[in-house]
Formats: sequence, C-alpha cells, structure tokens
Amino acid sequence: MHALGKHLLLELKDCDREVLDDVSFLRDALLAAANECGATIMGESFSQFTPHGVSGVVIIAESHLCIHTWPEYGYAAADIFTCGDSVRPEKAVEILLRKLGSQSHSIVEMRRGILDIE
Amino acid sequence: MHALGKHLLLELKDCDREVLDDVSFLRDALLAAANECGATIMGESFSQFTPHGVSGVVIIAESHLCIHTWPEYGYAAADIFTCGDSVRPEKAVEILLRKLGSQSHSIVEMRRGILDIE
Repeated sequence: MHALGKHLLLELKDCDREVLDDVSFLRDALLAAANECGATIMGESFSQFTPHGVSGVVIIAESHLCIHTWPEYGYAAADIFTCGDSVRPEKAVEILLRKLGSQSHSIVEMRRGILDIE
Repeated sequence: MHALGKHLLLELKDCDREVLDDVSFLRDALLAAANECGATIMGESFSQFTPHGVSGVVIIAESHLCIHTWPEYGYAAADIFTCGDSVRPEKAVEILLRKLGSQSHSIVEMRRGILDIE
C-alpha cells in the first residue's frame, strides 16, 4: 500500500548531556542531518529553555525534522518526517545518533498518508 | 510507567481541500489550536509549496504542533507533541478536525521519553 510519507520517531537515550543543552550545536546538527539526507531546507525555529532543554524544528520541502531535549535525563525525542524517494531519512538518523552521542536508542517508523489512490 | 511526553499523530482525511492550500488559514488554525489547548507559543515556521501544499510548525514551550497538507488528496498529516499536565492536546485535535473539515480521521498516541527515573 502506498504511503505519502515516512515518519521516524527516535528515542535517543544516554546522550551527551552537554550538547543536549546547546541550542547552537543542536541547530547545526539538525541542519546537517537535513542537508546530508538530501532534503531542501525551507525554514527553522529553535528555542532554548530555562533552566535547561532545547526544542527545534527544521521544515524541509519533504516535511520536517524536530528535536526536543531533556539534558537532565540525557534524553532527546527526535522526529524525521519525509516524503518522496529523493531523501534518505536513515542518513539523518545516523547523523543525529552520532552527534548526540546516544548510547541507547529506539526507532518507530510510521507510514503517513496511506490513501486509497493510484 | 511515566512518560515525559504525549505525541498524537493525526491522519486527517476528506478535508476541505481549499483550506489545505491556504497557508494563512492553516497558520491561524495551528496557532488557535496551540492557544486553546493551553500551550505557550515560542516560535513558528510555515511554507507554501508550488503547485500546492503547505507545511507548518508551531514550537510551544510544551513541544510542538506540525502540519503537512496534500490538498490534491484532501489529506493532512498533523502531529501534536506535548509535555506536562498543563496542556490539553485533545482540545487541539478537536480544533484542527473542525477547522479542516475532516470527514474521516485516525489518531495514534505515542508516549515519548519513557525513562527509568523517579
């Protein structure tokens, strides 16, 4: 059955706690993940929270990449939602895992937009 | 088991095709959904695609709301990711369903950040 999009939900545990609280680092990491998986970047929004934590999103022509971090737990929730066959979301996963230093992770893949169309 | 966040993945089918291609309408709808569920808005990014389709995200202090639309199929994929007990994501769902005129929908709820902490 054809789906319009692929949505990867990443649970990133046992990460480098320092980078999880560094909005500049996380922005660079998400933009690098978007670029290296072949996506076209359309927009972005990042926020640093007090006392800790970062939320960020990069809108791509093929959908989005999001991250929310809890440095106090060494945990980040990331989503990579892509459409079409021109991008390789697995490449973005690989980059985020490496840059965040996650020692333990899981991924759920959801297929989005399974429609009754040709 | 305690989870840090609740992530609702909405499949919105048989929507009003006109509003699915109206970036201004969708921005207002997503901001209204964020406000009315009690979230604190931190940032946003919306893009209109050619020949059709819109992607948008609102970053909230409690995580995010995202939407991607396919007007040609009357379909939208929306995500509502919230943390904490002060917001009511179900209220945001209700608003999006109504504003997009979805006649058929499904929701998957994912619990994010199930950690071995007190």
